[in-house]
Amino acid sequence: MATKTGKQYLEELKATRPNVYMNGEKVDNIWEDPRFESTQKILAMNHDFVFEEAHKDVAIVQSPQVNEPIRRITNHVQTTMQDSLLKLDLTRDIANRRICAWCGTNVISLVWVATWETDRKYGTEYHQRLKRYVELSQKNDWDSSLAKMDAKGDRSVRPAQQKNYPGVRVVKKDAKGITVSGCKVHTSYGPCCPIMTIMPCRAMTEEDKDFAVSFWIRTDTPGISQIAKPSPNADHIDLPMQCPMSNAFGVVEGTTFFEDVFVPWEQVFLCGEYDMAGLYPHYFGTIQRQSKCSCLAGHSDLVAGIAALVADVNGVLGKSHIQDKLTHCAQMAEVAQACAFGAGAAGKLHPSGVFMPDPLKVNAGLNYIKDLTGEHIQMLHDIGGGAIVTMPTEKDYRDPRLKKLLDFTLAGNDKYSSEERIRALYLCRELAATEFTGYYMGWGVNASGSPHTGKILVRSLYDLDYRMGIAKEWAGIGDSRPWPGHCNTNKVWAGN
Amino acid sequence: MATKTGKQYLEELKATRPNVYMNGEKVDNIWEDPRFESTQKILAMNHDFVFEEAHKDVAIVQSPQVNEPIRRITNHVQTTMQDSLLKLDLTRDIANRRICAWCGTNVISLVWVATWETDRKYGTEYHQRLKRYVELSQKNDWDSSLAKMDAKGDRSVRPAQQKNYPGVRVVKKDAKGITVSGCKVHTSYGPCCPIMTIMPCRAMTEEDKDFAVSFWIRTDTPGISQIAKPSPNADHIDLPMQCPMSNAFGVVEGTTFFEDVFVPWEQVFLCGEYDMAGLYPHYFGTIQRQSKCSCLAGHSDLVAGIAALVADVNGVLGKSHIQDKLTHCAQMAEVAQACAFGAGAAGKLHPSGVFMPDPLKVNAGLNYIKDLTGEHIQMLHDIGGGAIVTMPTEKDYRDPRLKKLLDFTLAGNDKYSSEERIRALYLCRELAATEFTGYYMGWGVNASGSPHTGKILVRSLYDLDYRMGIAKEWAGIGDSRPWPGHCNTNKVWAGN
Amino acid sequence: MATKTGKQYLEELKATRPNVYMNGEKVDNIWEDPRFESTQKILAMNHDFVFEEAHKDVAIVQSPQVNEPIRRITNHVQTTMQDSLLKLDLTRDIANRRICAWCGTNVISLVWVATWETDRKYGTEYHQRLKRYVELSQKNDWDSSLAKMDAKGDRSVRPAQQKNYPGVRVVKKDAKGITVSGCKVHTSYGPCCPIMTIMPCRAMTEEDKDFAVSFWIRTDTPGISQIAKPSPNADHIDLPMQCPMSNAFGVVEGTTFFEDVFVPWEQVFLCGEYDMAGLYPHYFGTIQRQSKCSCLAGHSDLVAGIAALVADVNGVLGKSHIQDKLTHCAQMAEVAQACAFGAGAAGKLHPSGVFMPDPLKVNAGLNYIKDLTGEHIQMLHDIGGGAIVTMPTEKDYRDPRLKKLLDFTLAGNDKYSSEERIRALYLCRELAATEFTGYYMGWGVNASGSPHTGKILVRSLYDLDYRMGIAKEWAGIGDSRPWPGHCNTNKVWAGN
Amino acid sequence: MATKTGKQYLEELKATRPNVYMNGEKVDNIWEDPRFESTQKILAMNHDFVFEEAHKDVAIVQSPQVNEPIRRITNHVQTTMQDSLLKLDLTRDIANRRICAWCGTNVISLVWVATWETDRKYGTEYHQRLKRYVELSQKNDWDSSLAKMDAKGDRSVRPAQQKNYPGVRVVKKDAKGITVSGCKVHTSYGPCCPIMTIMPCRAMTEEDKDFAVSFWIRTDTPGISQIAKPSPNADHIDLPMQCPMSNAFGVVEGTTFFEDVFVPWEQVFLCGEYDMAGLYPHYFGTIQRQSKCSCLAGHSDLVAGIAALVADVNGVLGKSHIQDKLTHCAQMAEVAQACAFGAGAAGKLHPSGVFMPDPLKVNAGLNYIKDLTGEHIQMLHDIGGGAIVTMPTEKDYRDPRLKKLLDFTLAGNDKYSSEERIRALYLCRELAATEFTGYYMGWGVNASGSPHTGKILVRSLYDLDYRMGIAKEWAGIGDSRPWPGHCNTNKVWAGN
Repeated sequence: MATKTGKQYLEELKATRPNVYMNGEKVDNIWEDPRFESTQKILAMNHDFVFEEAHKDVAIVQSPQVNEPIRRITNHVQTTMQDSLLKLDLTRDIANRRICAWCGTNVISLVWVATWETDRKYGTEYHQRLKRYVELSQKNDWDSSLAKMDAKGDRSVRPAQQKNYPGVRVVKKDAKGITVSGCKVHTSYGPCCPIMTIMPCRAMTEEDKDFAVSFWIRTDTPGISQIAKPSPNADHIDLPMQCPMSNAFGVVEGTTFFEDVFVPWEQVFLCGEYDMAGLYPHYFGTIQRQSKCSCLAGHSDLVAGIAALVADVNGVLGKSHIQDKLTHCAQMAEVAQACAFGAGAAGKLHPSGVFMPDPLKVNAGLNYIKDLTGEHIQMLHDIGGGAIVTMPTEKDYRDPRLKKLLDFTLAGNDKYSSEERIRALYLCRELAATEFTGYYMGWGVNASGSPHTGKILVRSLYDLDYRMGIAKEWAGIGDSRPWPGHCNTNKVWAGN
Repeated sequence: MATKTGKQYLEELKATRPNVYMNGEKVDNIWEDPRFESTQKILAMNHDFVFEEAHKDVAIVQSPQVNEPIRRITNHVQTTMQDSLLKLDLTRDIANRRICAWCGTNVISLVWVATWETDRKYGTEYHQRLKRYVELSQKNDWDSSLAKMDAKGDRSVRPAQQKNYPGVRVVKKDAKGITVSGCKVHTSYGPCCPIMTIMPCRAMTEEDKDFAVSFWIRTDTPGISQIAKPSPNADHIDLPMQCPMSNAFGVVEGTTFFEDVFVPWEQVFLCGEYDMAGLYPHYFGTIQRQSKCSCLAGHSDLVAGIAALVADVNGVLGKSHIQDKLTHCAQMAEVAQACAFGAGAAGKLHPSGVFMPDPLKVNAGLNYIKDLTGEHIQMLHDIGGGAIVTMPTEKDYRDPRLKKLLDFTLAGNDKYSSEERIRALYLCRELAATEFTGYYMGWGVNASGSPHTGKILVRSLYDLDYRMGIAKEWAGIGDSRPWPGHCNTNKVWAGN
Repeated sequence: MATKTGKQYLEELKATRPNVYMNGEKVDNIWEDPRFESTQKILAMNHDFVFEEAHKDVAIVQSPQVNEPIRRITNHVQTTMQDSLLKLDLTRDIANRRICAWCGTNVISLVWVATWETDRKYGTEYHQRLKRYVELSQKNDWDSSLAKMDAKGDRSVRPAQQKNYPGVRVVKKDAKGITVSGCKVHTSYGPCCPIMTIMPCRAMTEEDKDFAVSFWIRTDTPGISQIAKPSPNADHIDLPMQCPMSNAFGVVEGTTFFEDVFVPWEQVFLCGEYDMAGLYPHYFGTIQRQSKCSCLAGHSDLVAGIAALVADVNGVLGKSHIQDKLTHCAQMAEVAQACAFGAGAAGKLHPSGVFMPDPLKVNAGLNYIKDLTGEHIQMLHDIGGGAIVTMPTEKDYRDPRLKKLLDFTLAGNDKYSSEERIRALYLCRELAATEFTGYYMGWGVNASGSPHTGKILVRSLYDLDYRMGIAKEWAGIGDSRPWPGHCNTNKVWAGN
Repeated sequence: MATKTGKQYLEELKATRPNVYMNGEKVDNIWEDPRFESTQKILAMNHDFVFEEAHKDVAIVQSPQVNEPIRRITNHVQTTMQDSLLKLDLTRDIANRRICAWCGTNVISLVWVATWETDRKYGTEYHQRLKRYVELSQKNDWDSSLAKMDAKGDRSVRPAQQKNYPGVRVVKKDAKGITVSGCKVHTSYGPCCPIMTIMPCRAMTEEDKDFAVSFWIRTDTPGISQIAKPSPNADHIDLPMQCPMSNAFGVVEGTTFFEDVFVPWEQVFLCGEYDMAGLYPHYFGTIQRQSKCSCLAGHSDLVAGIAALVADVNGVLGKSHIQDKLTHCAQMAEVAQACAFGAGAAGKLHPSGVFMPDPLKVNAGLNYIKDLTGEHIQMLHDIGGGAIVTMPTEKDYRDPRLKKLLDFTLAGNDKYSSEERIRALYLCRELAATEFTGYYMGWGVNASGSPHTGKILVRSLYDLDYRMGIAKEWAGIGDSRPWPGHCNTNKVWAGN
């Protein structure tokens, strides 16, 4: 059975013994360490939610690869527009309710495309290997982390031009496999995953070819060490009232060092075909950012809900300026989700069989919603008020004498008890005024690619020449052909 | 043959002799009057473009009603998601190239839905009549104008509560038909159309029932008078260089007075079923605004193209601040179009057979792009520079001595002749610094409904309670049910 | 008596007979030509308002140069912070009530500074000549136009590097004076002024030295021709109801050609001292933009007032979303005016005796308000509604039968008659939906310098290194000096 | 000597033994407790910086009350425009370098005004008492905290209408003094101050008169308990590299409970004169918000500096998109400071002798910069990149093996060592991605009054009627008086 419950999955995970450091010390056993507990909770939740009544019809899908039910968002290869839209709808709802939907489907699908293109050009066998990996992942119901971003050194020069480019490179090849060294950064969940997928983060030239490498690997393979950045507010997981989100949910972030790590050929998806390296960030920037757009729609929903709740406990939910702000937040969410859907509706089928959204609409939509991340947090301060910064802590509230004073003092809208108001303020505080805020902002601003990258893509994908041509014809400049016409619709439907 | 060329269509139009006033005087024959020439040009263009190579596959569609090829954007009843997306793609391109795509399909489709619902509730026969009208319109390849907005009097009270509500009302009914009086405003193209479709602009109560009326009518029916607001820059249609857009294209706007106008029952779609009146603005606000969203995407494209051209003739197209502004404009266009597509992808099939987009995404997307109308014009001033306000006129340029001075003086990027630079500046000037600007702004800000209406709809359609429920569960407020889940996907696909 | 009434001034103007073209034809006598009438009205108004009760204490000031009362905004040399603030307060109010306050004081003051600096470096006598010119201008109560901007050719290369740079250059020098040729653009009011002040528009190098020239001249000097761009809506000055602003007020814009024009040395302020050329745009960009900031504050006030009026005639002034928009507009006005005042408060006394505002605050404030120009116009459409684009014309309203229909139909809030509502809508329409809109936008976006220029100045004037130094010290990077401190206050007060 | 060094001041503070709780436990001795150490550092800094070479001329001022040098920002009564501008200049620089300038001058000055007005109306002696308090504060070089904001209960009803309004009220009066009970919230620094000033936070009616109370008090008076919210990142004061700001600087926030606290009449500034209660928030909202505007200008400078540094260590400082963002940040800072200065330049002298800024400009300017708080943090994420969320901790970096890996991996621009880059990223991280972020946002969004309050003030202070009057005259509505004129300048100068 390819879909495991969270409990089953966590049980199996214990066999994985990755080499992990946190705060300068080696972690004995991450599965027993309380600092990794909230990350394990989110791992489990992502296995469990697919069985919920509201979702199961779409969250579980029959795999054509292994002919078993699998989790759509994590292990499905996306082949139709409908796949794409169902994924987005689920993603938004899970992001709203659990922050992260773990959209592994995108990684599997993009490597499917990239290996297919590489094989077609080079006659290699990467695509067959990828298919075998997909079958393994589906059958085992794995969650793989994604190690894409190199530590980059001096960003103004190419990898090969740097004396000590710190990214991952191939240092040896032989009949059995390859040996790699170097560092990947920003690997969400990495330390708690059994599997890691490595891929290039940029286009490359011939001289960079040692860096053109992609593969999957078990995280407890010798030579791999990970430094785990603690999940947000990990220091406060003993404070469930004050830190409700970080108690329900956590993401450790990994920095991964490869020191002469051996990878058998069976696990390698790219090795030296430097002109194929750029396909990885290219397709990542298309399919993954579509999910990110829905993810940030869900985060807007989250902000709208928390803002509405805190306005209600403060007794001001009905005020017109509050309603305006909430409507503005709703609108952000809907525009983002509409863009994700629209990119799906304008997508097409790649010859490898994967359905790809329209990258221009994906990036335009994601740029739109990324730019509003700061506004989200600001709105929570605006509606939550100064209390979210200055109010006493949960430990104060546990003291019986202080509790009595605070219950009297912090009463608000009498639909709610003082404790309920305090709980709502703490929730707002956690999202807007703690270390969690930093993660929220990071997930909005930089996750799935920086804002500047998105803008460059819009610039390069938009057909400005066509529009200048129309302007020239209005102005009567140049040859006066009748207007040429430019309708994407045929292409839109090519793949369906 | 149901699709006529522009020439054929204009020829036939001459049989229509509407009662039209302009600037305080009755117009003898609008078909010969030069002030109506640019409007006739756009009428003709909307018939001709469907035959263009680039468009014809999608712009012409086989009608299931009359089993003949018809113009998709004008006379097709929209029944599938694909219909919706094809319409949007065409709309954006035509709006970019000709300002207005004349999206009559939306009116036909929404009256289809409204009459179907009215019949189902009241056992009336409006839907059959509407079908016969659709057949007529398709066979004759008509363009109907839409007279929806009442002159509203005091907006703070309902029609029936005003002593003299000036909107259209039924003043008499008999076996043959109804007699109506009152005024409709904002009827684009009205004076140049053979047919007008009248419908309610608001929800009504029983006391308003005389105003609950919808019908189609020939515009030269006795009792109808129209005041035509001249098309933009109509005073300057002798200046093709200075006013290139208004020479190629024009829209007269009509204010229509009904003075005891008789309408046979065969043409009536609603009469007194007051609780059905609100269906008209409701479905208009869904299906029409989706097209408006694409229309404004096309206008953003237009602005991007003109701005790029004027930057190029000024020699600054490559500057990073110019490129940033153009990318911003491209992004606006793509977000708007993505929202229109996304609303289509999230739409569903109405039981009457019409495919309706998702109204929440429609309104969120349209609000987004409406809000940027002022920025468009400002960008043209920014990039065009002061010259678009201060430069000499075409009449100056026609004078040989001044032309010589100006050719010397106004030279710019030497890729272009002085005349070409001047033409580009005039084009930018027309869009950004003349009466045309007023129309452009009006089409952006108020056409298809005011910004405030759109915001009210987002507020009412967004499920804020669900999001507050999630916030309560994070905060541990109230009963601690497991998260409920909220996935629209099933509904999304219900109609497909 | 140095302050003339408008009537006296216009009477005297008739002696000036400039060589002016409009729409390709030479204008016989601009003082009799109706197309120049509204510009003459504004000329007269700028002489008359200083005698109004509300203003006269500050609008008239005793000149230290000629020891007579003069108009502060037009002919005063600014020597104190109080001068600066009084000017700004007047400017905002006049801009609100009459669009343009004619701030000649800035030109006089900046040439005062520039000639003083040139003389100090080169031992020339320009400053004495300027003083004599100032005395003449004050005694005659002249209004000089400003011809600063060259026609620029290819903006990517310097004047001397262009084969045919069309700007003004010295073509001959002899004992009596200089001879100049070339073209200046964007000269507001030029054709209706007796005097024109010419100055460089950019910094120059040695090879550009022929273009480094400044002087004053009578506009009817042989060799000068001006093309007058008609004032906004000049075609409609017979429609006082429909075009109330352009009937009360007009600005012709001039393009001025110098063809071998002789200028006696007595009138020359700069000739060949190329390294001084940049002082002109530099000080212009400081003192003139401070007035522009107040001018745009006044325009925001104008928009707020018109928007409030049209909301009131429509019966929606009290709605919360309308109030929010009006408050937003009020805030724009106050921020702009506060920035202008703040730049004054942070200004200092130049050793030549002129009080100069702080250029960093000037440019930051002006950038702020310029960026909101599009929003102003958009707000008028939003609040005015579609009627401002589609409503019948004044000529329709003059027809008795149509008037009756329109009076019935266009009634609104019953505090106002239909005619009053129509008048308010026409006013809103003129500002937001006619050629006037183009001028309004131009005055906001490009007048006194382009938005990009302002941003470059903020970048260059802001002490970012100091702030990076503070960041380094927080981070413990580099030598750990105690924080250095950086207080401008002493400098601020140096000049007072 | 009235200006003490930080060391002297801290030494004296030890005599104060307030009753303080933190995290549910009574704090033994706050002066020895490490969790209060960073707050003591900022107390000391605010005493020390006045002696810095760069500041001392303006930071120390001779008191007319006690005829001794005192700290301008903390204890000076502001009596001239120059006082106001010097204060603002200092405030911005200290806010840039130390986050908080401790602007007690505003509290002293506003109570000066409020007591003067109360005495004038009621013949009371509050003003004399306030003067004696000012002398005490100046002579002792005290820093008083400000306890203004009541815990408010249900915000939709007035204090007296609530069953249990939790704010501070008078429960007893006798010949010697008054007895008060209730709670004040948001008292920055409160637990570490020897003195607290209490004042009303809202306008009141007769039935609220028990809440109309103001006084000063020693914080160790019996009956007072404070709950101290720990200063930001107080948990990490052992990590100077990772948390450089919170190690140099801290603010504990206090919630203060008064349980039958006796206050002698000598310390009382208001008691029962309910119609005077509103003066406190009114003048606070004027004079304090002017400083807040400069404070946020300084914070913008801080963000600009950190963003520039992190861009530089990442090797991208010269990129045009980075420069644009930094310029935008510079502009925000300058607009805010210009507004503060402008409000000073438009201020006037209150008859009590205090110089008050213009409240309209103050609130417009503060609204402007408050609205940009989220953008500041977003920009730091944008420029800092994902590393500020995912990078390893200082404890990792202290481990020799990991340090070696990280030094190799995190190298950037080679102008900087890896450690310097890491330090810059930590600094950026602390401001943008930790609990410090919450404080930063709170200081921006809510400190000195909520955004909504500011907007209400702009609405009420702006003379919209005057602008509607001008619009009516343009439109020819109503009586056609000549334009009336409206120049504030006379009033502006009345007080100078």
